[in-house]
Amino acid sequence: MAATDPTPIRRARADQARPVADLLRHQIHAGGYPDSLPSETELAAEFAVSRNTIREALGVLKDEGLIDRGTRVGTHVAVRKLDHGLDALVGLKETFKHYGEVRNEVRAVLTMAAPPAVARKLELAPGSEIVYIERLRYLGDLPLSLDLTYLAPDIGEQVITHPLETNDVFALIEQVSGRQLGSAALALEAIAADPHSADTLQVPDGAALLMLERLTSLDDGRPVDLEYIRMRGDRITMRGNLSRKQPGRSSE
Amino acid sequence: MAATDPTPIRRARADQARPVADLLRHQIHAGGYPDSLPSETELAAEFAVSRNTIREALGVLKDEGLIDRGTRVGTHVAVRKLDHGLDALVGLKETFKHYGEVRNEVRAVLTMAAPPAVARKLELAPGSEIVYIERLRYLGDLPLSLDLTYLAPDIGEQVITHPLETNDVFALIEQVSGRQLGSAALALEAIAADPHSADTLQVPDGAALLMLERLTSLDDGRPVDLEYIRMRGDRITMRGNLSRKQPGRSSE
Repeated sequence: MAATDPTPIRRARADQARPVADLLRHQIHAGGYPDSLPSETELAAEFAVSRNTIREALGVLKDEGLIDRGTRVGTHVAVRKLDHGLDALVGLKETFKHYGEVRNEVRAVLTMAAPPAVARKLELAPGSEIVYIERLRYLGDLPLSLDLTYLAPDIGEQVITHPLETNDVFALIEQVSGRQLGSAALALEAIAADPHSADTLQVPDGAALLMLERLTSLDDGRPVDLEYIRMRGDRITMRGNLSRKQPGRSSE
Repeated sequence: MAATDPTPIRRARADQARPVADLLRHQIHAGGYPDSLPSETELAAEFAVSRNTIREALGVLKDEGLIDRGTRVGTHVAVRKLDHGLDALVGLKETFKHYGEVRNEVRAVLTMAAPPAVARKLELAPGSEIVYIERLRYLGDLPLSLDLTYLAPDIGEQVITHPLETNDVFALIEQVSGRQLGSAALALEAIAADPHSADTLQVPDGAALLMLERLTSLDDGRPVDLEYIRMRGDRITMRGNLSRKQPGRSSE
């Protein structure tokens, strides 16, 4: 077992600023600074680094749009991020009911022949008719996400007879099918916003988006809902718990 | 129950290109195009859209760095993304053992007084000594992630006597503690790379990164490992399954 070489004592300022930025980002998300951030001098003492390092860390968070800084007014939290659960299958409206009302701008409702990739995922014959819904979802005045949804035809045709502006699709699927949702397979990526998506979500070109692909099945195992969800990176954090053991195995 | 208004028939080309880009991205990740993508004409038929719409969708994926396009050579997959499990607590080396060898460039190993946020998370007295490790993790020649790790002192002091270049910290924690890992609380965000992190990860300034905060506990419930992991958005997808029921409740 070879001992690891000791680290050189002098580290680049950016390398010292990065962990400070990460811990401040965490404390901001946790609501640790409801009013304003401590002064540079106080933060320098808290993290045992120079004021220049603190200034560099705050610059990183400013560039992320997380804080505003002014010479006279100090440093304030610019935007409060929302937590979206990775643990349970719940829609945005259900998730954010304590923050405010989620409102959906319905941009498209179409019946179309399923592209082959969609037919495969929903276990339908190639070319089957499916229902496509596109929604821009707001909490307050700011967009949260742009959701593209493909629904199995029997479910989709009933879902679109209900008001999509004010309901989660998950709740409508359970209502019209008379079944509970079972499980979902999901994939999460970070992608840069293309110009048109950026414009739609009101973020700068190339802004970081959290992209969620989610295939949801009913409790009988049938996949009925395939979604591609672009979430604003500056507004949503996905949170969850996981365990060392494989799911389904007991932990003792 | 008001019926939803029908969608206008003509949609902007960008709105038509977006779902095509999402489905192609999915098929590329799934290994559906090992050699090259079908021609624009074939894709236009497959998705029932115009060749101009296909060209716009391919432009989005090219800007993401996912595909290369040449007038003579067609469209090829530029980079194959790797799947990282959200379901179980496994390190990168263990996760990617079928893709190749994960190698860690150890950029820092320090003993330091825990910043207050770290002490709180690790349930230590303020100012306790902790071990800080910084690693740039490669698979092949390309960086995958930049990992900042804070370890509880008793665990950390033993972990750093082992070779960190070739071992997952998770495996070392279990080895030195004689216990299994229990569970982890995680938060996933999309952030833009600051210039220095971009340079370190070999991506353009402002590139989309998947940022993972993970607090891992032993199977006795003690939190011992707090990590801040910047993953290259173009190289890693996080995948998992979730269920409608709350964790811990039976699904029947």
